[in-house]
Amino acid sequence: MSESLYVGVDLGGTAIKVGLCNAEGDLLRTHEGPTQAVNGSDAVLTNIATYVKELVAPGTPEWDAVEGIGIGIAGFLNIPEGIIDFSANLPFRNVPVKKIMEEKIGKPVKINNDANVAALGEAWAGAGKNIANCVCYTLGTGVGGGIILNNRLIEGFSGMAGELGHISIVPDLEAIQCGCGKMGCLETVSSATGIIRMATDAVERGDKTSLVFIEGEITAKDVFDAAKSGDEVAQRIVSRAAFYLGKSMAAVAVIINPQRFIIGGGVSKAGDFLFAQIREVFDKLTPDNARDRVEIVAAELGNNAGVVGAAGLFLRA
Amino acid sequence: MSESLYVGVDLGGTAIKVGLCNAEGDLLRTHEGPTQAVNGSDAVLTNIATYVKELVAPGTPEWDAVEGIGIGIAGFLNIPEGIIDFSANLPFRNVPVKKIMEEKIGKPVKINNDANVAALGEAWAGAGKNIANCVCYTLGTGVGGGIILNNRLIEGFSGMAGELGHISIVPDLEAIQCGCGKMGCLETVSSATGIIRMATDAVERGDKTSLVFIEGEITAKDVFDAAKSGDEVAQRIVSRAAFYLGKSMAAVAVIINPQRFIIGGGVSKAGDFLFAQIREVFDKLTPDNARDRVEIVAAELGNNAGVVGAAGLFLRA
Repeated sequence: MSESLYVGVDLGGTAIKVGLCNAEGDLLRTHEGPTQAVNGSDAVLTNIATYVKELVAPGTPEWDAVEGIGIGIAGFLNIPEGIIDFSANLPFRNVPVKKIMEEKIGKPVKINNDANVAALGEAWAGAGKNIANCVCYTLGTGVGGGIILNNRLIEGFSGMAGELGHISIVPDLEAIQCGCGKMGCLETVSSATGIIRMATDAVERGDKTSLVFIEGEITAKDVFDAAKSGDEVAQRIVSRAAFYLGKSMAAVAVIINPQRFIIGGGVSKAGDFLFAQIREVFDKLTPDNARDRVEIVAAELGNNAGVVGAAGLFLRA
Repeated sequence: MSESLYVGVDLGGTAIKVGLCNAEGDLLRTHEGPTQAVNGSDAVLTNIATYVKELVAPGTPEWDAVEGIGIGIAGFLNIPEGIIDFSANLPFRNVPVKKIMEEKIGKPVKINNDANVAALGEAWAGAGKNIANCVCYTLGTGVGGGIILNNRLIEGFSGMAGELGHISIVPDLEAIQCGCGKMGCLETVSSATGIIRMATDAVERGDKTSLVFIEGEITAKDVFDAAKSGDEVAQRIVSRAAFYLGKSMAAVAVIINPQRFIIGGGVSKAGDFLFAQIREVFDKLTPDNARDRVEIVAAELGNNAGVVGAAGLFLRA
């Protein structure tokens, strides 16, 4: 077996997913198991090692072909040294994950943050395949991002490259505070959380909207459905989320000039209804040379983007 | 003579400046002569070849050590193929400069746009020396830019990377049209032209300002001088220019996360008075991890940035 193989690990708060990729980014198979975060960091890392060895049996030619293990993690990381400084949904504080996992598995290990890793997966083997320069937005609870230039994930001076959710974009007098402490970040208006907040505010202040009839908590999907049905309040909320996404892309377009924007995450399931509005703003605000032939497309790998991108850390980071 | 040498050419509308650099970016000597643009593109290119050969005598060991000639040009360029598509201040229309100059000089030639080349010069051998990730703003007639990541100038999909003057940043209702055709670009408010326009508007509408006493055309320096002397109208203009610069840097900080911002060009001569205001806005809008230890500094190479950066095209592009 001469082909090089790569293992990707998507370390979540509830489940750990592992996957085996070849050098082209094809996902050959996956496996998963519970994180068992309550048992502490060492138990979690032992689980990762177990699942990896269940995915690829040690001692086989296939195991020998594995060049390394990449791990995607939500949290504040020291990427070069492979340390998790802090994670909101995992019991990790200053844990040298790279070192521990290399001892447990006997293969080189790299870590990176989950949004970067998902972006790398999409760029390498999903909606950005064969595109050297692309930018990924993940519209979920927050707005995550990742940037691939010349086929490489960029990390920046302190690992903050691609933190697209924290572009300061809402004008001061309209801004609210973001979880990061700053005012007017993109994710305050364009994440699921931001959309739900705007909808809940509208209902609470008595705006005339069909959203008042939603039972239980309003979801971002409820807002999109109402907007598609002609609800003007919901349409205004979607327009606002789309406007700032499109405006942020116009900025990205003249800063790094990517060929393709890739949008994933739960909110992106709103599809063309959302994408068309983003595109309209992007076209309006971006100079021709940075706009023409530049595409805004949906992510393709779904939940597999994380394992594929983690596997890709050895080739593209 | 075993050390590799590089020649840089700063091709301006009036003068051509050439310089010789070593592999560390040290500028060993310069030479210059008139462009003579009225004589047409072939005459201009012949002048470049003449000045290069006057800088380094062909047939000498030094000439043999020259690895290539880089040329910085204001205009729309096809960088990979080395063609000037159009230039506003030079008689070049679809001229294959790289091919012609390689025939005239017998050395490899690269071209790139003047703002990128100046940024590369500063990053390589000026205020960004030994900094792998830095972003340069040139505040002149327009707002130019250039981005160096991992010690390399980035160009983007269509050569538009680093076009920082065209970040759409002024809110719609306050925006005016930019020369690029779009509304609200950074250079409409933060270039010398933008500052002069705001000052002229203020005088014409009768704002109470000392700028009414300026004889002849108001300059950006006049506006800074008035602001430093306490003129409130001038202070408001400077604050606006600084605000959008700082806000654009906050966006750049979470997109590519540079270690250092370098500000050059005529407007940057306003010094700490301008820089302090930019820094204040940047600090206010940028998440801690992308802000701490990130510096905003003045360019150091002045008019030599162009020749040094052009020479650097062979090592850093």
